[in-house]
This record gives sequence, structure tokens and C-alpha cells, in this order.
Amino acid sequence: MIIDCHGHYTTAPKALGVFRDLQIAALEDPVRNPARGSLAISDDEIRESLLGAQIKLQDERGIDVTLFSPIAGHMMHHIGNAITSQIWSETCNDLIHRVTSLYPRRFIGVCQLPQSPLVPPKSVIPELERCVNELGFVACNLNPDPSDGHWKDAPLSDRSWYPLYEKMVELDVPAMIHVSGSCNPCFHPTGAHYINGDTTAFMQFLTSDLFRDFPTLRFIIPHGGGAVPYHWGRYRGLAQDMGRPPLSELLLNNVYFDTCVYHLPGIELLTRVIPVDNILFATEMIGAVRGIDPETGNPFDDTKRYIDQVEWLTGEDRAKIFEGNARKVYPRINAILDGD
Amino acid sequence: MIIDCHGHYTTAPKALGVFRDLQIAALEDPVRNPARGSLAISDDEIRESLLGAQIKLQDERGIDVTLFSPIAGHMMHHIGNAITSQIWSETCNDLIHRVTSLYPRRFIGVCQLPQSPLVPPKSVIPELERCVNELGFVACNLNPDPSDGHWKDAPLSDRSWYPLYEKMVELDVPAMIHVSGSCNPCFHPTGAHYINGDTTAFMQFLTSDLFRDFPTLRFIIPHGGGAVPYHWGRYRGLAQDMGRPPLSELLLNNVYFDTCVYHLPGIELLTRVIPVDNILFATEMIGAVRGIDPETGNPFDDTKRYIDQVEWLTGEDRAKIFEGNARKVYPRINAILDGD
Repeated sequence: MIIDCHGHYTTAPKALGVFRDLQIAALEDPVRNPARGSLAISDDEIRESLLGAQIKLQDERGIDVTLFSPIAGHMMHHIGNAITSQIWSETCNDLIHRVTSLYPRRFIGVCQLPQSPLVPPKSVIPELERCVNELGFVACNLNPDPSDGHWKDAPLSDRSWYPLYEKMVELDVPAMIHVSGSCNPCFHPTGAHYINGDTTAFMQFLTSDLFRDFPTLRFIIPHGGGAVPYHWGRYRGLAQDMGRPPLSELLLNNVYFDTCVYHLPGIELLTRVIPVDNILFATEMIGAVRGIDPETGNPFDDTKRYIDQVEWLTGEDRAKIFEGNARKVYPRINAILDGD
Repeated sequence: MIIDCHGHYTTAPKALGVFRDLQIAALEDPVRNPARGSLAISDDEIRESLLGAQIKLQDERGIDVTLFSPIAGHMMHHIGNAITSQIWSETCNDLIHRVTSLYPRRFIGVCQLPQSPLVPPKSVIPELERCVNELGFVACNLNPDPSDGHWKDAPLSDRSWYPLYEKMVELDVPAMIHVSGSCNPCFHPTGAHYINGDTTAFMQFLTSDLFRDFPTLRFIIPHGGGAVPYHWGRYRGLAQDMGRPPLSELLLNNVYFDTCVYHLPGIELLTRVIPVDNILFATEMIGAVRGIDPETGNPFDDTKRYIDQVEWLTGEDRAKIFEGNARKVYPRINAILDGD
């Protein structure tokens, strides 16, 4: 079985964007506020949005199931206030739930959290509980920068995050660290802010005792871990200079990397330096890069092809990357995948 | 000849730090302001600070000459105002000049610029001219985030930077893109902010027409280009999706990567995906990582060893990486190296 742990509903019907536009317009003109639950999208529209897109690509690429979440770039937690984020997140998560209800074998839900800059992270717990307990979701996307490019909130190692981590541990769900769009003109969203967010979160983990305090807490760092595997020597050296334990002890029981790296040399590096137990197959499709690589004739984000080409991976390694590790990191998927 | 294009005077005598401490204290209590030029460091102290450190390592590692600049992490352009930065930069650059005067065969000067958040970049031109024309420096370090972790200034593609670029072109000096320390608790300096700064700058170049406007402007992105080579497929794909020219046309006549990547797999990736003409040897020593890699028994930052091990590099390739490319990117070094 091939499990893609990183997909977003980037092809959601236009009505979702209209809802969001109204919500944003209402920040200045409350009369325009869309009614909660007013989103009118038919089941057929949902099917249509997926059949020629994610589902088509799943079939072409041999992907059985995708862990599916709202559009990361549209979380935009800095817009409005905590209520704005609450309603927007509920709306997006409900739509993902409709997808997983229509295609329970193909899509498993991962929720957006109603974060808001400088609002205590514990405020997102009710929505996490709702998504996991009521909608059957198996994980969340956690934005390490709810200010969307200004990095105003506390690092992920700060105690203010601990209530959320306690709940994640209790529910046995991991979080994918995922920033949203950038409202800072210095940072291109998918080219800089995404990758920087990954690198930044890793270093927050490296310098903290988070996993001493939460030995079973689990994070997936997407986009191949940002810059981390490329600079694995730097990180091993920094940890050593700081007198920290080896990275294998310090965080590799808790931190995982996805395979959203869009060329073979990158995937080779990832699988060379990061233990195979810490690598989870993912594509990010339909996501940041949508074209065909003229050097290979294949889509940049068809990451399975790269993994298939890595010579030193054994059959057992591939089984872990494509399936086994996801079952371990996201244990709630087992009941869904193995149910009838 | 082996030219290290990235070294900082991290072992500067303590008096430099005392001067800076007084300067910072004077922001609250002007009476404490150190007199301009009051820094009292003897030639012997300078020799002593280098002989057992950078010079010893140059000799051990076979490095002939280092392009040497003030401590990047101490530029801290956000402190005080433009005058604060002006005096601090002059002080640091003058000290580098004393180093290059004492060891003209071993160290060539690269200057710190007196940047300050939200102050027009053209304000640094006089110090750049002084360093190049009067002190014999060959390049500058350009901080893409003078707010030191808050990214409040305009992207490097903004027109406000153009007067500085015009001067760089006129003087025929490149800039190494180099952030300073971080005053944002989200960003570890050498583990996150440095690498993010590199990645961010690259994406600012990718999305702009900077090199159409300045065909001979040259930047070195240190730390192996941040996350860029690891995600080279992503960057090629993003450029293609945006309808931009191939990266080779768009920026590889202007953007270069150093080899401050502290493990063999990282250097292998760098030399696999980035054209050899765009790679410049560097160590960052004595810098971010100072220990011995237990996996190899050698210093993490002894990057020459990694380059020596890359099987597919020819003798000609190595000559470019170790010497030829530096002579091309920093043309002012030729008169110094080939003079008598």
C-alpha cells in the first residue's frame, strides 16, 4: 500500500474562496459576514474537483490513499482574530470531512487548526478534538508562525504550546509542521517561507527538551525537512557543540521528514542521511510545483519515481517509507485502512 | 592555490567586545560612549588571536588565503541607529584592515556594511567605498535582514537597494549575502536564521529582474546556498510555473554558492546539482560548528576533505572551486594574489 501523508485540497470548489472573501470583507463591513455553515457546495462539485485532479494523479502514480488537509497557503491565521480563524478552520475541516466521507478509501482527514497570532495555542484544542473524535481525522497541521511571515509567536518549545501537545499525546495524533502563506514581502510563500518554517521548527526542537517532556509526541517536518538533511552535518555539529545528545536520541524518535523533494539528487540525499524509519512518502500534490521537469519528462512532484530509483533502498526500506512509517506515526489510520 | 572565500574574525581580541558593550550601554547612557578610534589592540594581540586559530587551521588544511570579514553574528544591525552601525562597522572594518596589513598573503578584507533597519541602503555606500578604495577590500557582506530576525526591510529586489548595486558594479565587488544574529527567539542564529536568510535571498532573486537590470552584479550565497541545492527541483519547477527563464539564464551568471556544508553527502549534492562554475570553496572557520565529527574523526568544517572525496570532480573542476571561481567572482583579489 502507498500512503501519501501530505496532500492539500488545493482544488476545492470556488465557493470556498467566495466564503473566505466574504469573511475577510466582513472584517471591515460586518454586514457581509457569511453565515456559519452557509457554504453551498454539492457532492457532485466535490467529486468533480477531485476526479480530474488528485484522484486522477493517485491512480496514475499508484497512490492508494492521501492524508488530506485544507489548503495550507490559505490558512492565513493572521487574518482577523481568533473567531475569524475558528470559523474558517471549521468550514475548511468540514469540507475535508465531506471529501473523506465521499472517498473513505482514498482520503483520510488532517485538520487545520484555528490558530491566531499571540492567542494561546490551547485555544485550538476543541477544534482538534472535534476533528479527531467526531470527524475521524488522524492528525493536524500546526503553523509555527500564525503571524504568517513575521514570526511573532513563541517558539514551538515554549510552554504555551504544552496544553496542545498534551492533547495530541492523549489523542495519539501527530502534527505536520506547516506554515501558511506569507504576508511578509521578504518571503515567497512556497519558495522561502515554507522551507524556512521547516528549518526553523527543527532547530527549535534541537535546542529544547520538548521530547524529554513529551516522549511520544510526534511531528512531521514536510518538504523533506526544509534545509535540514542537506545540512545534517551542521545540525549534528551544532548539537554536539551545545552539549546536546546525538540527534538520534534527541529527536529522531519524535521527528519525521516527508519526501516532498522534487528531484532525484535531493531524495538520494534524504535517504542517505536520514534513517529510513524517519522518512514518510509524500507528494504535496496538487501543490507547490505543478509542471513537468524537462530534464526527466515527468512531473516534478511525482516523488514516487525518485524513491523507486534510489539504488540502496531495500524492499523493506521502501515498505516503511511508503506505508509502515505512516502507520506508526499516524496510528489512527490503521483502523481506517484495515477496517471493512 | 586554495582560497577560502568565507572566514570571519571570530577570534578578535576581547577589547573589540568591550568597545561594543560600551557602545550599546551608551544607547541608554550617552556618557559611556566609547570614543571613535579608542579601540586599543596591539599588533601582537592581533597576531596572537590568529596564530593559534585561523592561521594554524589554514596551515593544517592547506588553505593559502582567506577572504576575511568581521564577525557576522555581531554585526547586529538592529542595535541603536544608523550612526551606531556606522561607528561599529568602521571599527570592525579597520580591525580587519590591520589583519590584512599584518598578513597580506593570508587574509584579504571583506567589509561589514553599516546597515540599519529601514534606513535606505544607499547610506552604506561611503563605507563600502572607503573599504574598497582605501583599505583594499574586495567585497562586502550584505545583510538581507537588518532587523535581525524580523525581516522588516524590503526584499533585495527592491529599487531601494539599487544605488548600492550600482556602486558594487562600479567598484567590481560582489556581496556575500549574510544575515547577522537573531533577536527573534523563533530563530536560532546559525541553525535557522543563517540558513533561512540564504534561502530567502535566493527566492528574492528568482522572482525578480535584478540581473536583467544589473547583468554583472554578483552575489555569493553562503552555507551552501541554504536549502536551495537540496530543493533545486523545487526551484526549477517554481521558476517554470511562474514563466521565468531557466535558472541557468535567470541567475547563474550572478549567483554563487559557497561550500560551507559540513558533511560529505551535502557536498556531493551541491556538486551534483549546481554547475561547478558556481561553487566557491569556503569553510566559515572559525565559525558556526567547531567540533570533530565522530563519524569521520575530522572537524565538521574541514570542507576541503569533502570536496577532495567527491569522485566525479575532475582536476579542472577542483581548480575552479578552490581558486578559479573566486578569482572570477572577486576580481580584485587577482592584483593582491599575483602582486609581489
